[in-house]
Formats: sequence, structure tokens, C-alpha cells
Amino acid sequence: MSTFHVELKKVVDDSYDIEIGFELEEKLISDIKNGMVGKIHKFAVITDSIVKDLYGEKIYKMLLDAGYDADLFVFPEGEKSKTRKTKEEIEDAMLSKGYRRDCCIIAVGGGVVTDLAGFLAGTYGRGVPFINYATTLLAAADASIGGKTAVDTPLATNLIGLFNQPEKVYIDIATWKTLPENQIISGMAETIKHAVMADKEFFNYLNDNMDKILSIEKEACEHIARVNCDIKYNVVMKDERESGLREILNLGHTVGRAIETVSDYRLLHGEAVSIGLVAEADLALKLGYVTEEERDAVVSLLNKAGLPTQIPDYIDREALVKKLYTDKKVRDGKLRFVIQKGIGNVVEFEDGVFATPIEESVAREVIMQMK
Amino acid sequence: MSTFHVELKKVVDDSYDIEIGFELEEKLISDIKNGMVGKIHKFAVITDSIVKDLYGEKIYKMLLDAGYDADLFVFPEGEKSKTRKTKEEIEDAMLSKGYRRDCCIIAVGGGVVTDLAGFLAGTYGRGVPFINYATTLLAAADASIGGKTAVDTPLATNLIGLFNQPEKVYIDIATWKTLPENQIISGMAETIKHAVMADKEFFNYLNDNMDKILSIEKEACEHIARVNCDIKYNVVMKDERESGLREILNLGHTVGRAIETVSDYRLLHGEAVSIGLVAEADLALKLGYVTEEERDAVVSLLNKAGLPTQIPDYIDREALVKKLYTDKKVRDGKLRFVIQKGIGNVVEFEDGVFATPIEESVAREVIMQMK
Repeated sequence: MSTFHVELKKVVDDSYDIEIGFELEEKLISDIKNGMVGKIHKFAVITDSIVKDLYGEKIYKMLLDAGYDADLFVFPEGEKSKTRKTKEEIEDAMLSKGYRRDCCIIAVGGGVVTDLAGFLAGTYGRGVPFINYATTLLAAADASIGGKTAVDTPLATNLIGLFNQPEKVYIDIATWKTLPENQIISGMAETIKHAVMADKEFFNYLNDNMDKILSIEKEACEHIARVNCDIKYNVVMKDERESGLREILNLGHTVGRAIETVSDYRLLHGEAVSIGLVAEADLALKLGYVTEEERDAVVSLLNKAGLPTQIPDYIDREALVKKLYTDKKVRDGKLRFVIQKGIGNVVEFEDGVFATPIEESVAREVIMQMK
Repeated sequence: MSTFHVELKKVVDDSYDIEIGFELEEKLISDIKNGMVGKIHKFAVITDSIVKDLYGEKIYKMLLDAGYDADLFVFPEGEKSKTRKTKEEIEDAMLSKGYRRDCCIIAVGGGVVTDLAGFLAGTYGRGVPFINYATTLLAAADASIGGKTAVDTPLATNLIGLFNQPEKVYIDIATWKTLPENQIISGMAETIKHAVMADKEFFNYLNDNMDKILSIEKEACEHIARVNCDIKYNVVMKDERESGLREILNLGHTVGRAIETVSDYRLLHGEAVSIGLVAEADLALKLGYVTEEERDAVVSLLNKAGLPTQIPDYIDREALVKKLYTDKKVRDGKLRFVIQKGIGNVVEFEDGVFATPIEESVAREVIMQMK
């Protein structure tokens, strides 16, 4: 018996830039011309059936006009498309069009598109570069920083995927004007989550400027896009592999993701997170970490953004409790929650531990007592 | 417009050990007890339908006996199982058995098992640790170092996958005794490739000791396992992302992988690589980088190992030429080959460039003129 040691220690630089502004298509093309992805001249533009007509086709044609090889790969819009099957279909389409390792993927769309395309890029030819052109507030808040990519399976959301960092992210705020209103308010859920967990001042800003934001006033939107990046970066930066601190981004998501699944995706991700934030504020209230006024302030801000704060009648609450166990934070068969502390903070239970075990009976009580 | 910079530079340590020896099951269990994968106590043993009875079930039971949670996930043996579908089925089975991120995957088997399970581990919960227990010579030579994991698709082999490093690799030479003889000789193809491309002394050792190796003489087998690791490590170490040097490991594989696919997997991977080594030695001869004697020495050693060195009659050679274009080294629509230089070396065309464009007409001529 002998041992052969494989030494593989290295410095990895995954740094990238996020461009925040109005109508960034020209900027994207000029960045590519200026060598953002080296000598690559073959681009797979991945988008969904709605974003295709709005921006996907436009970017695809601009690439052709600039002399690049490009193809458009379109899948039906919606969380229901975020599956291994859709990934497989796009892979096969790319293979049949001769895409090899010397290509770059451009994801044009919201969180579903960037999650799926980022995952696909990470396993295509064992990894090709990708660019996110984010066309929703949700993608801006959620998918720009952190490198999380994934698809859903029948048994759990986001459990099959990768950590994969883009070459660059574009947050085109002009695109928010073409979003259905329920998509905007859905994106607000992640923004409000950031404020609740990390920034009281930002919470107050949102309270004072919600009208401007919902009418896509340029300055207010650029501000929230930037603060969202900043908050998320400061969390992710300190904990890229989601061992401890990063779990605070799960605030509202433990219940949120479960209710999203139990609703069979009738609830948008952000709507589900909004209800989850209320459930988890109720839990924090029960545990004594927030006052009734603070809990009410969260509900009030969510309502101001037009978000739902009650569990819909069609949800089977027992099924919801059971579904909590598919959460990624579950350890040794025990539910674990991140707990809000006042406004703008979360509880640190031990050094670097931000998720705490909660008895099923306690979680059930909170869910059963919710409106 | 404003730019937000995401700084993500870090030191990553993916180092691991390869244990080479006879009957290493006890060593595996004691390594786990000694904290090799931290506090994890839930293990998914992934294996194929043949290795299951030989070693998979044994290791699974030893884990249970040692007090760990474990399940056995078995798929039908053979390259035809190395698909996205098999990966999906095992993922669903693991999800339904409650596997989350706090688990470890143990791959028990040959290259197909380690490729598939390593890929699966890399995307399960965005990455869980995995251990390779290699039970074939091919896995020892090919899958222990380099971190390449992948599945096949109808249009190309190994194009969907990841670079993913194991926690530890066990090369159990005792298992080679239970391999069908065609598997042993198939594994010899990768070993001979290593010798041809990097080590003339090793080439001579193989020539002098082929009988001992084929009868699984302990000392000779431990020696070739160790030299295989050493050669591959020295290549991979210097070029982990396969930008230049690492392409030399593709010697014999440009034609080999194509013929494997065109044969519809009637040829074992190693058999296909053997024929590919001859085709590419012919190409090197044509280009003046090897003498006729050196080319014949390669064929002779492959024959000594019982490997095929001629293209089977049932292969459509035109289809084979066409299939060359699915090779991952293809750039700008051009075939690229690694070229052998004498015995134990390859041609470095420019600084760090080891694959050179070859006209289709030249590749076709070589393939058409082969026996």
C-alpha cells in the first residue's frame, strides 16, 4: 500500500463587474468587441418565450450585425421550465448547431433564465463563460451576485445546480418598464428581504420611495439596484460556499420556497418569499427577537409594494409544513431557520451560526395561526 | 450608468490523496471514521449492476456496520448508462431518500461510475464531497487524476460535465482480478498512451513486463498504477483547466472517441483508444515525427496487451471522419490533433501549444489507408 499525494492548491480569480443603467445592449456589444470574453466569436443567446421578443432577438441580431456567430435558444417562460429537461433540450440544440468549448453563453431574462443558463454554461464542455443580461428586478436583486445557478426537480427547488460566476452582469433598468406589474412587485420581495435582514436605512428608503420605484423612476431604481448588489455582495463575499453567514439570505425562503412548491407555482417566487417573510417575522416575534410593531412594519412595507402577506386559501397548510423538510438547511432531519432581529439585522446564534433548529411543532403553530 | 465591482479572488485547495494497494475497503472505512469527510454520516454508494455484487454491496454494508446511514444506488453497467437520464434517476432516488447537502457520495466502480458519480456529486445541492473507489485499471489510469467528470449525449461523448476533485481516491488492485480480461486490456490502452506520450522508460517496462501485468502480479500492477498517476499528475498539475499542455492526454482520443461513438459502443473505450493510438501514430509518421520502427513499436506493444490495432469492418470510415468534428479540440471548425514525437514525447508546436490543425483530407487519408 502506498499513497500518492495530489497537490492542487491555487489562486482562483472569479471577479467580475455589474453594469447598472438604462438600455445596456450597445454596452454589451462594445464590451465583447473590446475582448471581455477573449477571442470567442460564437454566442448562444438563451432566453424565454416572452423576453425573446422584447430583448433576446434584439441582442442576437446586434451580435450578428457585429459580425459574430450567434444563435437564439428559446424556452417557454416560467419557473416550470427551470428543469433538467429544458437544460437537456438546449444542450442538444447547441450540440447540433456545432457549439463546442469555444463559445460563450449570454442569458437574457429574469431569474429563471439566468439560473438555468448559468448552470448550463457550467457543465457545457465542462464549463464555458457566460454573461447575464438581467431584465427583471428579481434577477437584479437575486441572480447578479452569489454565483448560484440551479434547476428544480419534482421533489425540490434549486437542489441540482452549481456555484458558477458570470463574466459580467448587466442590470438594464429600462427593461423593468416592460415587466408585468406582478413581476416588479415580485422582485420587490427580495429587495425588502435585503433591507429587513441587513439595512434599516434602506428599509426606510423603500418605505419613503415605493411609489417612485413602482413607476420605474430612474434614480430610485438605480439606487435600489446598487444597494441590493452591495448588501448581497457583503454577505456572499464573506462566505462564498454558503457555510454560515450566507444562510441569512434564506430569510423568508424557508417557508417561501415550500409555499412556492405547494402552490404548484401559482405563486411567483417573490410572492411566495413575501408570505415567507411574514411567516418568519411571526416566528421571530414568537421567539422574542422582534416587537409587534417591527413585525407589522414588515407586513406594511410588503403590502405597500403590492405583495401578498397571507397564505392563499388553496394552500394545504399541513402539506406546507411537510414540504419544509425539503429545505437545503435541514440537517439531521431538523428544520433550521434564519431569524430576523428587529429591522435590518438577523440573530447570530453562535459565532458564524445564523440558522437555528426549530421544532416542527413551533413552525406548525406559526403557519396555522397565520392569516 | 454605474459599475459595481465584485471582487472574488481566493485560494482554493483541492488537494487529495490516492491510496494504491490490495483490498482497501477497511482503509476506506477507517479513513471515514478518522474524519476524512468531517462530520458527515450519510453516504450514497453509487455503483453499477456488475460491481454491486463484487464490491458495492460490501462497502455499503461495512458503512452500515460502522454505524453510518447509507444507501446503495445501482445503474446498469456499461458506457450506455453514462447519460443525463441515469444521473437524473439517481438524483431523484437520492432526493426521495432524503439526501440533502450534508451527504457524501462514494463511487465504486470503473470509469463510467466515477465519471457519472463525480459529475452528480458536483451538482447535487450545488456540490457535495465524493470519494472514488476505483475497481478497474482504466479508472486507475484515467479517472484518478484530473477531476474530469461527465456524461455522454447522443451527439457527443463527455461533453456535458464538470471539473470536480474527489476527497480521496482508492485504487484497489485486488479488484482487477475480478475484471473480465477485455476490461484489463482495455485499461492497458490508457497506460500505453501515457508511456507513448511521456515516458520511454515506462514504455520499455511495459514491453518487458506485460505478462506479469496481465496476470495481475501485485508488484508490477502497483508500479504501473503509481507511474500512471505520476505521469498524469505532472501533466494535469501544470494545466488544470486544459488550456494547452493537458491536451496531450488526448493522444489517441481524437480518433478513439469518434470510433467509440461510431461503433455504437461495441468497442470498449480502451479498445477504441488503442485503434486511435495507431491512427495517430500513422499521422505522426506521415508528418515525419516518428520513424516506421517507432510506429511499429507502438502497434506491437498494443498487440502484446491484446488490444485491437485495426479498424473493424463494420465501421463506416466516412462516418468516422465526419464524427471527428465532435471532438472538443475542434476550433473554428478545424480538426486539431496531438502528435506523438518518437516514443515518450509529443510535439510542442509553439510555446504551450500541443494540438495542431490538421486538414480533413489528411485525416481522411490516414483513416482510409489504415488496416
